[in-house]
Amino acid sequence: MAVLVVGTVTLDTVETPSRRVEDVLGGSGVYAAIAASFFRNTVQLIGVVGADFPQTYTDILQTHGIDLQGLERVEDGKTFRWGGRYTEDFNVRDTLFTELNVIEGFQPVLPETYKDTPYLFLANNAPALQLSIIEQTKNPKLIVCDTMDFWINEERAALEALLARVDVLILNDSEARLLTGDTNLVRAAETILRYGPERVIVKKGEHGAISITESSYFNAPAYPIKQVADPTGAGDSFAGGMMGYLASVEDTSEEAIRSAMVYGAVVASFNIEDFSINRQKRVQFSEISSRYQELQEAVRF
Amino acid sequence: MAVLVVGTVTLDTVETPSRRVEDVLGGSGVYAAIAASFFRNTVQLIGVVGADFPQTYTDILQTHGIDLQGLERVEDGKTFRWGGRYTEDFNVRDTLFTELNVIEGFQPVLPETYKDTPYLFLANNAPALQLSIIEQTKNPKLIVCDTMDFWINEERAALEALLARVDVLILNDSEARLLTGDTNLVRAAETILRYGPERVIVKKGEHGAISITESSYFNAPAYPIKQVADPTGAGDSFAGGMMGYLASVEDTSEEAIRSAMVYGAVVASFNIEDFSINRQKRVQFSEISSRYQELQEAVRF
Repeated sequence: MAVLVVGTVTLDTVETPSRRVEDVLGGSGVYAAIAASFFRNTVQLIGVVGADFPQTYTDILQTHGIDLQGLERVEDGKTFRWGGRYTEDFNVRDTLFTELNVIEGFQPVLPETYKDTPYLFLANNAPALQLSIIEQTKNPKLIVCDTMDFWINEERAALEALLARVDVLILNDSEARLLTGDTNLVRAAETILRYGPERVIVKKGEHGAISITESSYFNAPAYPIKQVADPTGAGDSFAGGMMGYLASVEDTSEEAIRSAMVYGAVVASFNIEDFSINRQKRVQFSEISSRYQELQEAVRF
Repeated sequence: MAVLVVGTVTLDTVETPSRRVEDVLGGSGVYAAIAASFFRNTVQLIGVVGADFPQTYTDILQTHGIDLQGLERVEDGKTFRWGGRYTEDFNVRDTLFTELNVIEGFQPVLPETYKDTPYLFLANNAPALQLSIIEQTKNPKLIVCDTMDFWINEERAALEALLARVDVLILNDSEARLLTGDTNLVRAAETILRYGPERVIVKKGEHGAISITESSYFNAPAYPIKQVADPTGAGDSFAGGMMGYLASVEDTSEEAIRSAMVYGAVVASFNIEDFSINRQKRVQFSEISSRYQELQEAVRF
C-alpha cells in the first residue's frame, strides 16, 4: 500500500558539542518519508524546495524509492533553512534560525494519483494546511498527524478543527502537557482523545512512547543508543517508520499499531546515530529486524 | 525466605499543591519493608526511632507482619524528621528541613538471627553504615543497595568501597549521571558495573526503570497513575517490592529479577496514590496481581 507524507524539506545547520554541519538534508517530510521507505510500500512525498536544493539530495530521496511527483520546486525561491544547537545531554535544543523561504504561502495541491492513498501522515505544519490536505483526499484508511508547541499556542482553533478529522495524533510529552494544561501524561492523552482522534501517541524521547485509546494503553520502548550524534528528525523518523510498517501490512489494528510503533522506534534509533539521514542511507532491513527483536527481549517479563 | 531491610524510620511533613500532612510515618526503611511485606516471606527491619515515635505507627508495621526486633528505640532521643514540598508536576521536590536526631551516630548491630538472612536491602544511607551491615552478615544470597546524590558528592570513596561488595545497585537517573559524569544512561549504567555490582537498576520515575548487566538489558514499565497524591517513598517501595518478591520465589535469576522489578513498580504505583503508607494499608494482593497483568498487556507487541 502507499503512504503519503506531507512535510518540510529543508537545509539544516546543526551544532552539537562535537560537530557542526551546514545545509544538510533535513525536514519532517524527508525524515518521515525515508523512515517509511524501509518497508514494502510506496512512499509519496508532498513538499516544496527552492532552486538551491541540491540534486544530490533529490537523488538520495529517489534512491530510497520515494515518489517525488508532489515535491514542488520554486525556481525563483530558496529552500526552507533551519539551524539548531544541542547541549551535551541532547535533551535541550536551541533554534538558531528559521528561514521559511519557499514554505511561506505554500499551498500544496495533491496530484490526482495521490488522492486515494490510504495511509496519510501529516508531519508538523500549520493546522490549516494539514486540514487542506485532508480535504483533498478521498477517505484515507488512516490519517495520522503531528503538531508542535507553536501551533498549540498560535493556531489553537485551527488545530482543534484538525483534530476532529484525524485518526491519530502524535506529539511529544511537553506538547501534550501544553495542549491540555495537564502535567499528568495519561490524563493529558485522555483529554486529547476528546478532541477527536481515536488514538493519541505521546513521544517521550529516550523513554519511548505511549499510545492511548478509549480501551487500550501501550508502552513502547525506545531502543537504547549509547552514541547519539544528532537527535534531529527522531520524532519524524518514528512516525514515518510507523506509517511505513502499517502500509506494508495493510492493517490498522491495535496489534499492528503496537508493532508499528516499535518499528518506528527502531528506525528513529538509527536516525540519531549520525547527522542528517547519513545513517539511514546505510541501514539494511536485517538491522531493523534485529533491533526489533532486541526490543522484544528487552521488555519481556 | 526472609528479607532484611536497613533504612530510615521517619516522621515526615509533606506539602503538595493540594494538601499538607505533618509527622506522618515515612522513611526508606518503612516504605521498603511495607512494600516487601506483600509477598510470602518474613520482613525484618533495622532502624532507629526516638521516644516520640507513636505506638500507632509501630502497630502499622506490626500489622504488616514486619519483624521489629532490629528497630531500636532511643528513649532520650527524637525520631528523624524530614519535610519536603512538591510542585504541580511532582517531578521537583524541595527539601524543607532535615532533623537527623537519633539517626546521627546510629551504629546498627544486627540481631544474631538476622545475620544469615538471604535477601538484604540497604536503603539509602551513609555508605560506611551500609558496608558495616554487610560485614555483619553471613554471605547473603543477594545484596541490593540504594544511594543518593549526597553520598555520591560527599562520600565517594566509601561509596566505591561499598559498590565492590553489592550485587545490585539501585539509583535514579540523575544519580547515575552524577556518579559517572555521563548523560547517557546506558553508558552510565555500564560504567557503574565496573565498580563491582553485577547489575545496575536505574529508576526513571514515571518512565519506569532499566536493568543492565554485562549481558542483559531490561526495560521495566511504570504503572500509569492518573492521580498522584504524594510520590514520597516511590523508589523505596519499588526496591522493597522487588526484594519481597525475590525472597518469596527464592530466585535471583534474570527472569525473577524482571518479574520482581515489575512487582516493585506496581507496589510503588499504589504507594503514590496517597500520603505516607495510607494506600498500602488497604492494598490487597489481588490488586497487585491485577496491575501486574495490566503491565504485561501494556508492553506486549
